[in-house]
Amino acid sequence: MAELPSKLLSRRDLEFLLYEWLEVEALTEASRHADHSRETFDAALDSSERIATELFAPLYQRCDQDEPRLEGDQVRVAEGLKAALAAFGEAGMVAATKDFELGGMQLPTTVSHAAMAYFYAANISAAAYPLLSMANANLLLAHGNPAQIEAFVRPELEGRYYGTMCLSEPQAGSSLSDISTRADYEGECSLGPQYRISGNKMWISAGDHELSENIVHLVLAKIPDENGQLIPGVKGISLLLVPKYLLNADGSRGERNDVSVAGLNHKMGYRGTVNCLLNFGEGRHQPGGRGGAVGYLVGEKHRGLACMFHMMNEARIGVGLAASALGYTGYLHALDYARNRPQGRAMDAQGKDPTSPQRPIIEHADIKRMLLAQKAYAEGALALNLYCAHLLDQAELSESSEERQALTLLLDILTPIAKSWPSQWCLAGNDLAIQIHGGYGYTRDYKVEQFYRDNRLNAIHEGTHGIQGLDLLGRKVTMANGAALKLYAQRLGDTIARANEIADLGGHAEALGAQLHRLTTVTRTLWSAGNPQLSLANASLYLEAFGHLSIAWIWLDQLCGAGDKVGDFYAGKRAAADYFYRYELPRIGPHLDLLAALDSTTLEMRDEWF
Amino acid sequence: MAELPSKLLSRRDLEFLLYEWLEVEALTEASRHADHSRETFDAALDSSERIATELFAPLYQRCDQDEPRLEGDQVRVAEGLKAALAAFGEAGMVAATKDFELGGMQLPTTVSHAAMAYFYAANISAAAYPLLSMANANLLLAHGNPAQIEAFVRPELEGRYYGTMCLSEPQAGSSLSDISTRADYEGECSLGPQYRISGNKMWISAGDHELSENIVHLVLAKIPDENGQLIPGVKGISLLLVPKYLLNADGSRGERNDVSVAGLNHKMGYRGTVNCLLNFGEGRHQPGGRGGAVGYLVGEKHRGLACMFHMMNEARIGVGLAASALGYTGYLHALDYARNRPQGRAMDAQGKDPTSPQRPIIEHADIKRMLLAQKAYAEGALALNLYCAHLLDQAELSESSEERQALTLLLDILTPIAKSWPSQWCLAGNDLAIQIHGGYGYTRDYKVEQFYRDNRLNAIHEGTHGIQGLDLLGRKVTMANGAALKLYAQRLGDTIARANEIADLGGHAEALGAQLHRLTTVTRTLWSAGNPQLSLANASLYLEAFGHLSIAWIWLDQLCGAGDKVGDFYAGKRAAADYFYRYELPRIGPHLDLLAALDSTTLEMRDEWF
Repeated sequence: MAELPSKLLSRRDLEFLLYEWLEVEALTEASRHADHSRETFDAALDSSERIATELFAPLYQRCDQDEPRLEGDQVRVAEGLKAALAAFGEAGMVAATKDFELGGMQLPTTVSHAAMAYFYAANISAAAYPLLSMANANLLLAHGNPAQIEAFVRPELEGRYYGTMCLSEPQAGSSLSDISTRADYEGECSLGPQYRISGNKMWISAGDHELSENIVHLVLAKIPDENGQLIPGVKGISLLLVPKYLLNADGSRGERNDVSVAGLNHKMGYRGTVNCLLNFGEGRHQPGGRGGAVGYLVGEKHRGLACMFHMMNEARIGVGLAASALGYTGYLHALDYARNRPQGRAMDAQGKDPTSPQRPIIEHADIKRMLLAQKAYAEGALALNLYCAHLLDQAELSESSEERQALTLLLDILTPIAKSWPSQWCLAGNDLAIQIHGGYGYTRDYKVEQFYRDNRLNAIHEGTHGIQGLDLLGRKVTMANGAALKLYAQRLGDTIARANEIADLGGHAEALGAQLHRLTTVTRTLWSAGNPQLSLANASLYLEAFGHLSIAWIWLDQLCGAGDKVGDFYAGKRAAADYFYRYELPRIGPHLDLLAALDSTTLEMRDEWF
Repeated sequence: MAELPSKLLSRRDLEFLLYEWLEVEALTEASRHADHSRETFDAALDSSERIATELFAPLYQRCDQDEPRLEGDQVRVAEGLKAALAAFGEAGMVAATKDFELGGMQLPTTVSHAAMAYFYAANISAAAYPLLSMANANLLLAHGNPAQIEAFVRPELEGRYYGTMCLSEPQAGSSLSDISTRADYEGECSLGPQYRISGNKMWISAGDHELSENIVHLVLAKIPDENGQLIPGVKGISLLLVPKYLLNADGSRGERNDVSVAGLNHKMGYRGTVNCLLNFGEGRHQPGGRGGAVGYLVGEKHRGLACMFHMMNEARIGVGLAASALGYTGYLHALDYARNRPQGRAMDAQGKDPTSPQRPIIEHADIKRMLLAQKAYAEGALALNLYCAHLLDQAELSESSEERQALTLLLDILTPIAKSWPSQWCLAGNDLAIQIHGGYGYTRDYKVEQFYRDNRLNAIHEGTHGIQGLDLLGRKVTMANGAALKLYAQRLGDTIARANEIADLGGHAEALGAQLHRLTTVTRTLWSAGNPQLSLANASLYLEAFGHLSIAWIWLDQLCGAGDKVGDFYAGKRAAADYFYRYELPRIGPHLDLLAALDSTTLEMRDEWF
């Protein structure tokens, strides 16, 4: 049974965000997008909404219940998944933003992300396969050599090959400098310098399956120095392309490479995405007559981490978008339930009559509070993520290197927020969606409990919450002499100035300005401490405060986009913004107080006191 | 494999709470507990810790994976559960607090609750069976007639019969006035007035199983008026005792009553506790030759809700204690992991050397923050719940009716906090426990993901978060002319006065006093609005602010109990209290601001704007 389209995302909101707020039609003025128009953008949204609704959403619970399993050395996934992913590929979604000559549509990233959000909302663990492939292909397009692109990226873009990223190892999760996977040089081949790879990689999503003709692993490994020793730290890390199947000279699928599944991880959620411990080079397969996984160097030797960050930043924004979409669909499910579930009566004279019919729970103030919170979280998070995508588009099209640099800096500082804020607050939204459903929401008869389980991963993978905090406060706000933070403050200042021209927005503009001033002051205080340990002790709280401030800005900016338009939709936007400014933004006050005080509670805490 | 005892609860902390803080040994001065001493209290804790560790904890994941299923009309549960529950019964835990003449131990409730916490920490969905039975037995002891007590309570206390509470119906979850289960009078019998019951009851935990000889359902139903009409509203509700099996004249188990399972609910967590839709009187069984479930009136006709509230208040404190125990064991699991997982290096000169060994993650500030938060939540929540149990003990022993009334009022106002605060914040603690485990915590190889799933129920059952907020702000703070709130403020005042006599506690005392003053002022403001809808619009936020204030008080009171004692344990208590006063208590400022402003955002929101 197909999901009602309205319970994935609000199309009305998407159109507001794209056309009224971000004004993406302006992108068609650039030659890259000259073949496009609002009609072609709408067509991409239509087709995504349709495939997501008809093929992805109906599999959502099945992908959870029938989780991937290892039979012999083959990974089996839920029935129907292969067909759904094939439809995704056939619709050209993998290559949506790519050049025409690569078989792409040259769709702006903003529109592509909006379209992708339908798949994330419908079935996040199914959508993770193409999400990873797209990031993988993008990395190879940026850093791979032409032969690698021809051999591996083309079939990825056609939806025939899928990709992975292999970073973590059992002893090295967030600490990449401690990886010990090794790559030994074998000689040159048509695909570049060839190596033999050996080591274990943990948490590899889409690490093995029979869904595609081949799997393109991008593997971080260390190339030993002239003495055969691994170079300690991140400096020795290189990036290798390791396919599941080697290619014959004519590009057809050849023999099995020495990559094998050592085990599957059984997760709380995101279960449809197979997650593997992979062994490289254990000798189970003998490509070229001997054990050792064959791989090809991508980019320069010892520059692997920089290449991988290209993929990781994209994956982080993808995670944020996925978390937003989960929050969004949870909200729409809760809204639908609240409108249709009668329970209790009003707190008025009529409500005291027990023979009067029960009222839909959406009439209760506390239910409206929980719905407003979800609306504010989900729409705010989605808007921020589309804003980031729009920065990517603008940077790609910009002809001024200065402007491009500025857009990139802004994107850099927003990336940890775009990843972490939806992971935290759209999960909180999913929690409220369960609460609105009451006992029913706690059962597997409704989807909201699965949204909650699935969304919980997003604060962990692609850099935990703690890592994002260190990235933001330890790197992004200080880089380029604080230029990114300055650009961020300018953007907020622009929004505040616009808001001050619009009736009734003065209060929000003032609140935003005050908190921005507070944040920049606190940032200076933190970095004038002269002690990085102390400065960074509460980086997670800084991340959270920065996040709430950013979403408050995004809400005010949306209201600027709405201007003085009237109607239920705009009244809803204003109400959600009011909610955010009244209930949410003030929460950051205590966080900023604590940061300003250079609180050292955690540094002073000792192991033996726990 | 048995769980390490230290990963359920900290015995050192339990002993501090019982003996150093609440000074429960003083209870042995009362004649009821004269046979007891610290040795007998310790023996009860020892035996609970042992059974919980050896029999309950090893089944924790099995109860989740092998969830109850319906085979024919029989409910099957996980293997081993029956033996674990039998050991619980044999240890006398069901009757622990009951009179000697009923086979009990006359243990103080405070000690019994501390012992029960081991079972909740070890396996909440297994422990739910005796928890419900104990509450059921207590209700019957208070409101049942002697024949009912002899026939049903005695075997419950021996662990041979289990009990349920049947309140909700599919169309009436939180709104009990809308139940439509009907009880028709049949005549008098040896167990009291006999009725035939018909209707459907939803969400019945332990509603059917083969774990006990019989099941004692306590059912809310409406007895029709003289015209055969159900009386609308809560006034018509009566309480009926409906056993699964009727009893023969000699008290032995007789024929099957007309109660049957219409279906099982499949939940996100708490899976070991079977949860049923029960049909009463559908005619599948024919007791006495005809359909209709036989039941016996408990207490007075039409006074059923008041009787049930006796059970519900106890169940609410039980839920709070269970949530606390889940938070506690999650914390100890995270602590153990953090001490043993090497990852990353320090932010100092040595840490820059990538050849130096990785450090246990407990050395990172953000990990310590997450551990401190969990410690503050779990120990604070457990302390509050034991404080409530101690009020029960004191009320029971008090010879002054005035004092007893005061203790009961205090317990009344604390009950919504004791239920809701741990349900919210110990769940937040479980979320942090997953985060500390990183990707591993998201897998089912570790228990923390199950703690998180299980604990999510606690904000729903026995009165949702929203219901607790309305109970607190709409009833508890205003009842008896605000006497309960006054008593609450006095207790906090006493703690503040004691704290001011102890070195270094002045700052916390001042902060607590200021926030208490704020809360009482805001309460007056809310109720002077003259519009209950507006006063109660943000009752959930009031509940949260009241909750944080209460836990801050409990932390300061614990430090008063610790006095000037030194050592790691006390240093840990002080650090957790510092954490709470620095990171947590200030959070309530924005909540109280919003409440003071009589914010009407949610009231003004309209359905069509969503």
